[in-house]
Amino acid sequence: MPRVSQDQLDARRHEILAAARGCFARFGYEGATVRRLEDATGLSRGAIFHHFRDKDSLFLAVAEDDAVAMAQTVAADGLVQVMRDLLERAGSGDTAGWLGSQLEVSRRLRTDPAFAKRWAERSAAIAEATRERLARQREAGVLRDDVPLEVLTQFLELAYDGMVLHLATGRPPGELSRVLDLVEEAVRKR
Amino acid sequence: MPRVSQDQLDARRHEILAAARGCFARFGYEGATVRRLEDATGLSRGAIFHHFRDKDSLFLAVAEDDAVAMAQTVAADGLVQVMRDLLERAGSGDTAGWLGSQLEVSRRLRTDPAFAKRWAERSAAIAEATRERLARQREAGVLRDDVPLEVLTQFLELAYDGMVLHLATGRPPGELSRVLDLVEEAVRKR
Repeated sequence: MPRVSQDQLDARRHEILAAARGCFARFGYEGATVRRLEDATGLSRGAIFHHFRDKDSLFLAVAEDDAVAMAQTVAADGLVQVMRDLLERAGSGDTAGWLGSQLEVSRRLRTDPAFAKRWAERSAAIAEATRERLARQREAGVLRDDVPLEVLTQFLELAYDGMVLHLATGRPPGELSRVLDLVEEAVRKR
Repeated sequence: MPRVSQDQLDARRHEILAAARGCFARFGYEGATVRRLEDATGLSRGAIFHHFRDKDSLFLAVAEDDAVAMAQTVAADGLVQVMRDLLERAGSGDTAGWLGSQLEVSRRLRTDPAFAKRWAERSAAIAEATRERLARQREAGVLRDDVPLEVLTQFLELAYDGMVLHLATGRPPGELSRVLDLVEEAVRKR
């Protein structure tokens, strides 16, 4: 039997994650059965669970990858832009599964201390990206300077959490786009 | 056997709700077992489920009562005050079960269309109370008048949802008190 290189293992792991992400996004955590994960990845459950201990580990790996990607987007475009993108995608209906996964993450944070500990690092990375971007905006003179950066960071995170909960519970977007204008205005220099 | 009057039935129903509320708040939805509900109410399961079809119906009745009470508090003191109270109670740690119940409500809204329909009336009542209070504040000249009331209402609701998700996932309050100052300032007249 030929040896499988670490690169090949990493590539396979990456393929499984991408396919599983689509499956969780489409069907949600509970709806993404092992059978559907097999269909999505084109692999047997044996092959999938060679790379991830179980469906749960696979879900957490997807969620953690998403958090890393989000920290990168926040660093580049800011948390308000992430919210605007989310709102737009919610309008086209292709975020229902992803939003459901976010609530699943929330449930885990409450009930699974080991997960909460791992997750704390991810959410710290997002907060750090938000803080750094605000710091650059303050340097550029576009951010209000009468409120500590940490408070502005947590204000934006509060709005993000609110948007996730609003959309995840299936409520219509309503005036959220204009609400985001208010959020943005509240951190800007007058 | 003596006839039980409607008043007596209502009183008993009210007692069960109050005791169950404490039990859900203390143990969360899943932790509030039927056995614990019996202990909390001092009644047998037969007696409890004479008034409420099952644990689920009891939970929904408690959640709906809470929503009605919240609409009343919002009408009297405003949604920002509700958030400040919640933050203070979270600091003393006695809201963990209640917050868990809120996430349980969120899960239901996603997965149970019949519940979502009933719940829509409750959340509409809270939005209406928020809107009316803002309208009175605008009359009094303390509210900014360059943004539609509906947008300000949804801005406050976004902050409320964000706070519920933040606290329900067990994250520390951090700077949320100063964040609420920002939220309040954002709707006030300059």
